[in-house]
Amino acid sequence: MSNPDVASPIIGVFDSGFGGLTVLRALKDRLPQAQFAFLGDTARLPYGSKSRRTISRYAAESARFLVNDQGAEFLVIACNTASALALDAIQDSVSVPVLGVIEPGAQAASAASQTRDVLVIATDATVQSHAYAAACRAQGLRALEKACPLLVPLVEEGWIDRASATGAVTAEVIRIYLAELTAESTAQGFHPDVLVLGCTHYPLLRPFFEVAIPAGVRIIDSAQAAAEAATRSINDRHAPSAAGPLVRPTEIRCFATDSVEKFERLGSRFLGQPVGKVQLVDLGG
Amino acid sequence: MSNPDVASPIIGVFDSGFGGLTVLRALKDRLPQAQFAFLGDTARLPYGSKSRRTISRYAAESARFLVNDQGAEFLVIACNTASALALDAIQDSVSVPVLGVIEPGAQAASAASQTRDVLVIATDATVQSHAYAAACRAQGLRALEKACPLLVPLVEEGWIDRASATGAVTAEVIRIYLAELTAESTAQGFHPDVLVLGCTHYPLLRPFFEVAIPAGVRIIDSAQAAAEAATRSINDRHAPSAAGPLVRPTEIRCFATDSVEKFERLGSRFLGQPVGKVQLVDLGG
Repeated sequence: MSNPDVASPIIGVFDSGFGGLTVLRALKDRLPQAQFAFLGDTARLPYGSKSRRTISRYAAESARFLVNDQGAEFLVIACNTASALALDAIQDSVSVPVLGVIEPGAQAASAASQTRDVLVIATDATVQSHAYAAACRAQGLRALEKACPLLVPLVEEGWIDRASATGAVTAEVIRIYLAELTAESTAQGFHPDVLVLGCTHYPLLRPFFEVAIPAGVRIIDSAQAAAEAATRSINDRHAPSAAGPLVRPTEIRCFATDSVEKFERLGSRFLGQPVGKVQLVDLGG
Repeated sequence: MSNPDVASPIIGVFDSGFGGLTVLRALKDRLPQAQFAFLGDTARLPYGSKSRRTISRYAAESARFLVNDQGAEFLVIACNTASALALDAIQDSVSVPVLGVIEPGAQAASAASQTRDVLVIATDATVQSHAYAAACRAQGLRALEKACPLLVPLVEEGWIDRASATGAVTAEVIRIYLAELTAESTAQGFHPDVLVLGCTHYPLLRPFFEVAIPAGVRIIDSAQAAAEAATRSINDRHAPSAAGPLVRPTEIRCFATDSVEKFERLGSRFLGQPVGKVQLVDLGG
């Protein structure tokens, strides 16, 4: 498939699940003329418990689907585990530019930090990979990472309304996690001024973090940072068309390898608009 | 492998993860002379998001490992998803008796219920299979099922101490879930007198449920019900040896297909004693 419309590039966005729709949401706000193909490899999640070799194979298959079958000219890996463990394998498997979420998150943290100490919260798998710590170190930052395994299920349960009893649970979970992280930070002599949200589910919890973080700490959302970095890179390649009304709304096609019903039901919460019909694709076992 | 010691049968216990250790815990209390081999197919969890065909293949491979390689003479499927979707496939794949967790849970609910209306809480995957509703219907019971997706991660985080701030979160989550379930039960004209804990993680939350359930409702723990049913069946086949001191402590060998470290770290919480060294086994992809 080739795309003759250079001002409307086709951008592939990949995640093991559908949390990466928060990255797509941030992308479409910045690139309203682009066309998007999103793939959630829901049949084979969670990637976090699998080996690097297996994750690389899955991610490469997914990347080839987006590039070869859907014509993507740019790939955003909206999955922390795949970004941490399989970015090289993905880059080797396709001939288009590929961007992960971790590097942009670390760069945005570096741009925001004065003290050069940052806190990172993420899933267990991402923290165990220490990919954020490594990317932060490359920016001259010290990073203290903490796994927050309850936050993804809280988001997927939809307990994100701060005014409700369920939202009060989420607020208390976040208070406990941040208190543990702050205590650890103090014990290690850190002086953090940035908190990196290192999971694509966490942007939905941003209002909770804004009221819970200590004074003087700024929030960096790695989904947003990745979307900004991708937008810069894409605009360098595909000059936005001259000012004027958009000829058509942003086009978004969504694919999943399993659990299409759950994707359609929960996806809109992450994308900020209906995801529409999700197509089931079979990438093998 | 064959076992000459008829009074010390080898019992295989299988789960997709390690929650099934609560069933093993209940079994070893009842069968102190038995030898146990536990397999957690941790490389391929969660089973809940996979198709019946895939789950059947995984579960049959796991069952054959326990019977053919470890000499199990009786199999307990301590996994709700595999019990719901793959019990026939497992029974076809081995020549020893096989017992799941769902049937015994429904039978124990039936024995306890006067009103013939029961409530069942479980994971999303188990509820979507409606296996408990079907098993309860076969006992002449009406069952109302509710998925409680936050409870497994709360248990795995270890937020189970009622006296702590983290335990207060768990108590509030359980209060919300039970309030939703009770409201739905009332709306449907149910008069439940039994609550079935339909997930192998939930026995660790039993103290929370005991203070949270409405008056007149009894708790049935399907892990315990399965262990009781298995004990009856095993004692019918292997007469317990005459009274006298045990010649050796209960022997428990644990195997996992991945995440051995997490198994060793969290498993003791479920088993109620250290799980010891967990052996990694490869059952293929």
